[in-house]
Amino acid sequence: MGANVFGQRFQLMSFGESHGVALGAVIDGCPAGVIFDEELLRREMGRRRPGQSALTTSRQEADEVEILSGVYEGRTLGTPIAVMVRNRDQRSPDYATIAQQPRPGHADDVWKEKFGHSDPRGGGRSSGRETLSRVIGGALARMFLRQEVPPLHVLGMTSQVGDLLLTEEDRRLLAAQDPASVNVDAHAARFPSLHAARAEEKILAAREAGDSLGGAAEIWITSPPKGLGQPVFHKLKADLAAAMMSVGATSAVEIGAGVEAGAARGQEFHVDAAGDVYGGIRGGIASGETIRVRVSFKPTSSIHDVAKKGRHDPFIVTRAVPVLEAMAWMVMADHVLWARTDRV
Amino acid sequence: MGANVFGQRFQLMSFGESHGVALGAVIDGCPAGVIFDEELLRREMGRRRPGQSALTTSRQEADEVEILSGVYEGRTLGTPIAVMVRNRDQRSPDYATIAQQPRPGHADDVWKEKFGHSDPRGGGRSSGRETLSRVIGGALARMFLRQEVPPLHVLGMTSQVGDLLLTEEDRRLLAAQDPASVNVDAHAARFPSLHAARAEEKILAAREAGDSLGGAAEIWITSPPKGLGQPVFHKLKADLAAAMMSVGATSAVEIGAGVEAGAARGQEFHVDAAGDVYGGIRGGIASGETIRVRVSFKPTSSIHDVAKKGRHDPFIVTRAVPVLEAMAWMVMADHVLWARTDRV
Amino acid sequence: MGANVFGQRFQLMSFGESHGVALGAVIDGCPAGVIFDEELLRREMGRRRPGQSALTTSRQEADEVEILSGVYEGRTLGTPIAVMVRNRDQRSPDYATIAQQPRPGHADDVWKEKFGHSDPRGGGRSSGRETLSRVIGGALARMFLRQEVPPLHVLGMTSQVGDLLLTEEDRRLLAAQDPASVNVDAHAARFPSLHAARAEEKILAAREAGDSLGGAAEIWITSPPKGLGQPVFHKLKADLAAAMMSVGATSAVEIGAGVEAGAARGQEFHVDAAGDVYGGIRGGIASGETIRVRVSFKPTSSIHDVAKKGRHDPFIVTRAVPVLEAMAWMVMADHVLWARTDRV
Amino acid sequence: MGANVFGQRFQLMSFGESHGVALGAVIDGCPAGVIFDEELLRREMGRRRPGQSALTTSRQEADEVEILSGVYEGRTLGTPIAVMVRNRDQRSPDYATIAQQPRPGHADDVWKEKFGHSDPRGGGRSSGRETLSRVIGGALARMFLRQEVPPLHVLGMTSQVGDLLLTEEDRRLLAAQDPASVNVDAHAARFPSLHAARAEEKILAAREAGDSLGGAAEIWITSPPKGLGQPVFHKLKADLAAAMMSVGATSAVEIGAGVEAGAARGQEFHVDAAGDVYGGIRGGIASGETIRVRVSFKPTSSIHDVAKKGRHDPFIVTRAVPVLEAMAWMVMADHVLWARTDRV
Repeated sequence: MGANVFGQRFQLMSFGESHGVALGAVIDGCPAGVIFDEELLRREMGRRRPGQSALTTSRQEADEVEILSGVYEGRTLGTPIAVMVRNRDQRSPDYATIAQQPRPGHADDVWKEKFGHSDPRGGGRSSGRETLSRVIGGALARMFLRQEVPPLHVLGMTSQVGDLLLTEEDRRLLAAQDPASVNVDAHAARFPSLHAARAEEKILAAREAGDSLGGAAEIWITSPPKGLGQPVFHKLKADLAAAMMSVGATSAVEIGAGVEAGAARGQEFHVDAAGDVYGGIRGGIASGETIRVRVSFKPTSSIHDVAKKGRHDPFIVTRAVPVLEAMAWMVMADHVLWARTDRV
Repeated sequence: MGANVFGQRFQLMSFGESHGVALGAVIDGCPAGVIFDEELLRREMGRRRPGQSALTTSRQEADEVEILSGVYEGRTLGTPIAVMVRNRDQRSPDYATIAQQPRPGHADDVWKEKFGHSDPRGGGRSSGRETLSRVIGGALARMFLRQEVPPLHVLGMTSQVGDLLLTEEDRRLLAAQDPASVNVDAHAARFPSLHAARAEEKILAAREAGDSLGGAAEIWITSPPKGLGQPVFHKLKADLAAAMMSVGATSAVEIGAGVEAGAARGQEFHVDAAGDVYGGIRGGIASGETIRVRVSFKPTSSIHDVAKKGRHDPFIVTRAVPVLEAMAWMVMADHVLWARTDRV
Repeated sequence: MGANVFGQRFQLMSFGESHGVALGAVIDGCPAGVIFDEELLRREMGRRRPGQSALTTSRQEADEVEILSGVYEGRTLGTPIAVMVRNRDQRSPDYATIAQQPRPGHADDVWKEKFGHSDPRGGGRSSGRETLSRVIGGALARMFLRQEVPPLHVLGMTSQVGDLLLTEEDRRLLAAQDPASVNVDAHAARFPSLHAARAEEKILAAREAGDSLGGAAEIWITSPPKGLGQPVFHKLKADLAAAMMSVGATSAVEIGAGVEAGAARGQEFHVDAAGDVYGGIRGGIASGETIRVRVSFKPTSSIHDVAKKGRHDPFIVTRAVPVLEAMAWMVMADHVLWARTDRV
Repeated sequence: MGANVFGQRFQLMSFGESHGVALGAVIDGCPAGVIFDEELLRREMGRRRPGQSALTTSRQEADEVEILSGVYEGRTLGTPIAVMVRNRDQRSPDYATIAQQPRPGHADDVWKEKFGHSDPRGGGRSSGRETLSRVIGGALARMFLRQEVPPLHVLGMTSQVGDLLLTEEDRRLLAAQDPASVNVDAHAARFPSLHAARAEEKILAAREAGDSLGGAAEIWITSPPKGLGQPVFHKLKADLAAAMMSVGATSAVEIGAGVEAGAARGQEFHVDAAGDVYGGIRGGIASGETIRVRVSFKPTSSIHDVAKKGRHDPFIVTRAVPVLEAMAWMVMADHVLWARTDRV
């Protein structure tokens, strides 16, 4: 399988460099008859776009989505769904400087060595702009699952801003709501906390200090079909881990109790926890309970980036949330299709 | 691709149930001409086997390896390499009880629902015994890489036993040695620490108390070829995360600074750390520095397992170490082959 | 995907060299709950075996089938099904001569150059014995389809022996029978013709003259589900063509009117033929009518083979029939599973 | 793997319906550093376009190619190469009629049943216009191979027009030329024969009579690398057969002596033929000699097509020639990349 293809049954092929002509996605394997919701697609694309609040980078991207194929009279055809977004500022003058000056923490030099080419931008595929294609794939996966497994929902949020974490109270309040109605975007940092304002202050302070902050996001997959996931190499947790770790700047993926499980004792762990420590996955397979994935992010390296002088993004988790959600939607769509062939 | 196939270029197909006739592996894509080292294969199989020390479960497995195909006069042929291990005690009477009594923390019921079958053992693929096939694949990958990238080494170790972690001093001592000469197995728990004895006591105490311990392992991939990994969906970190998370009882995968990166500030993170925080991977691609992967494990659930009464394994990380190493060897072999087609 | 894997959803991995320890197959993707019919498997293995009549090579193969995994209490588990056949005469002394003397028409030298290895037998994978794995896969596919699409049947036969072809009358007689009840094996050459005896004489005469005969086989897939096949690259005819052409000594694959369609005029072709000229496939997709595939074979090259002196097989189509049938069963199983994900 | 992906290492994903917004291709796996020859791409796209001579359908397609990604400063980047062609007349009024009236010989009804959708055009993927994507893939494959295996060439031609075949003399004259310099396009029907004029008359006569003609094309792959192809399921002949049979209206694929091999005797076949009967492939692997593939086509069914009244194409082989060439280029690129991992 190619390097730019994600999924086994519901497959996304991603294309485009951040400063080429266009970026996009082709989805192969989406069943025919899915009600196409262009509004959903545009909304998710909008959520991914940088420059929406004072907290993020000021780069304005238009992201006008064009559907090229696979949809007819409001439904998918069963043929590949190609979606494209044109780049506006294809040849940013900023990038001329990069040719001479490698960006610390960036992979420009590694890519250059790998492919041996002349592109100072490392091929433009390690850019955050590449995540466009994932959001397209995620939106299609969601349209499919909305019909197929209506109760299923994917809820993403920032759960850590530097050293500031969601509190137990925050979590209680969130868990008490219908996941589909939680409006994480009401918070500028997508940090649905009683301390959201403090998080936003931290981010602004980092920005002013020319600094950046690490953080974490959580993805809650509620009401998943029991039994989802495949034995051995395509355990649901393995596919989710790969999906999340394929996003830039990630440094850890945890399922359920995650790293803390390492310090636990079995007698407490398996008895008290009422299943939550498993994160909704047992033996690699969905148990039907909420699947909980936590993804850690490094602080952005763009603070040292000459090309982004004065407009770096001090905290990238906020922008990553819709991308991680998209990855989760795709993993679920993939396994829902796969499960159709489990039994005679 | 199938649920039981791992890898894109160097591919392992795993087969066998823990209490069926045999388990094994078929490797497709291993180049011709690799010097076959049967001794290495047997040694790694031995390292995986439970029952080797007082710390682990008492189940004695013979694991006699039979090479069925793909090797001729001491070299691989370029054809599939099939290796098989027969099960001795195929119909353990213990398992009769499981039919009536599901094991907490186990996935028996989930698997049963998934496949709808009558096997009380959930198909026998979620057993630790399935890891046999991975060790076979890892050994072959290692034979290939030994010829192809001689300096490359994969060093695995237990890095956490419950709340006991490798200390900074332990790490300094380890880093000062040639990775290929570190003998982690000299320690009963594969915990290469000045506090190894304390770790072993903890494990024995847990065993006696009918309890189990979580923990963590680390995999250090030293001297990897710079530029390894593929853009976007097959970033090296994504493939490593999937590989590790496909092993049973894992709950987290971290690369480099991992979860701690989430609490970091960019100015310190990207400057002070001299590359170590990246864990040898930038932009998803190997930078040439040591790749550091940390894998957390839940405490074993077998404490409640009627079938394992009195002989449960209180700490499974020790046994998992050679399995994680094998996964890492396979990921590296896969990407080394893949990199051959990167450039004209 | 690997070189030794066949199929997209129902996947066969084949392993083993003709003179190694064992040959076999692992099937991944066979749904759980398929009633396992060991008798069917053994019967098909027997049909593939050479040395069954005076017409074929005298090499006696035992082909004792051992099921290693994937089956429990008479049903498939949804886990990989591994099946193995041990070789008896692993180191035939005949083969020593080959090292010095390449066999005309054989691929020994090509394989040697490709893999650069020391195996005088070209890796032993181009042997007819490799087809064992295909028959195993075909038998499993058939067991699955018997439950899933009961009316579906695959009927294979020799349709040409050198210049002797099935007559129109032969075809009429065949078409008048229930395909599942046609006993092609009643004829030594599997040539279900009023002229069967003449065909057998031709084969014996060729054998005595140290000569061999080309020929053809036909595969009739009756009562296929309408709509089977995928657009563009996995058209049913494309997958069938690849399946048939992957068998040794094949030189042509025809669907429906085949080569004769090239000389046809549209007004006659599309009107008179009542669908038969399409061979049951339109736009690459099964129309529901009988699918007709014709496969041509070169005369065996083993007439010049020092290793087979005096016991060469003068006509290999007879033996190929169950192998082609197996390939067709697998293609159908693959597409039946694939079709499960066509629609919402 | 998806239904719309072709190849294992050098992969094409095809998208677009004949009357949707756009058609195109994304190529994943093309190595970095390939000199991009836009002129070659446009020329091949032009060769595929209908309406170029009096012999073909009068539909005028513009086919303006836009390169969206994967190319920078005249070389491929190692990232996916996306190429798009917009449709002009997206909603042809002709197609309204189809909704009511299925076209004989077309697959509209089969597709409709398969995907269950409302598109009267069967999803628009069975159209000849879909071959655009193949020509794009073929052009890229050719650019790659031009650098990698300079002597390799793919020469396609019409070899049969109804009952009119290339003569032995025609073949002698062709074989005497440098394959790269043969200008098949100098003939309106791409039939490089001393009888080309007669072929053209036949086509015009069929057109006037509202009739159509079957035919055949041949693909000669000259100077292929010896040893190309993979054992067992990805034999070069199997992959070529699948490639050719995935093109619409094909009914047979022959390698070397093809169907005629079935009537041959071994003593003549393997001795006299000087390798030509094998069609350049032995044991499924390229022997280094010219690979000869023959593809038969049914007469077009569009004679009965209400939507194409008065402007049907009486002979489609001419237009198919560049498409078959493209498929052959892709198969070769795929296997050349694959062969890089054959040996240590």
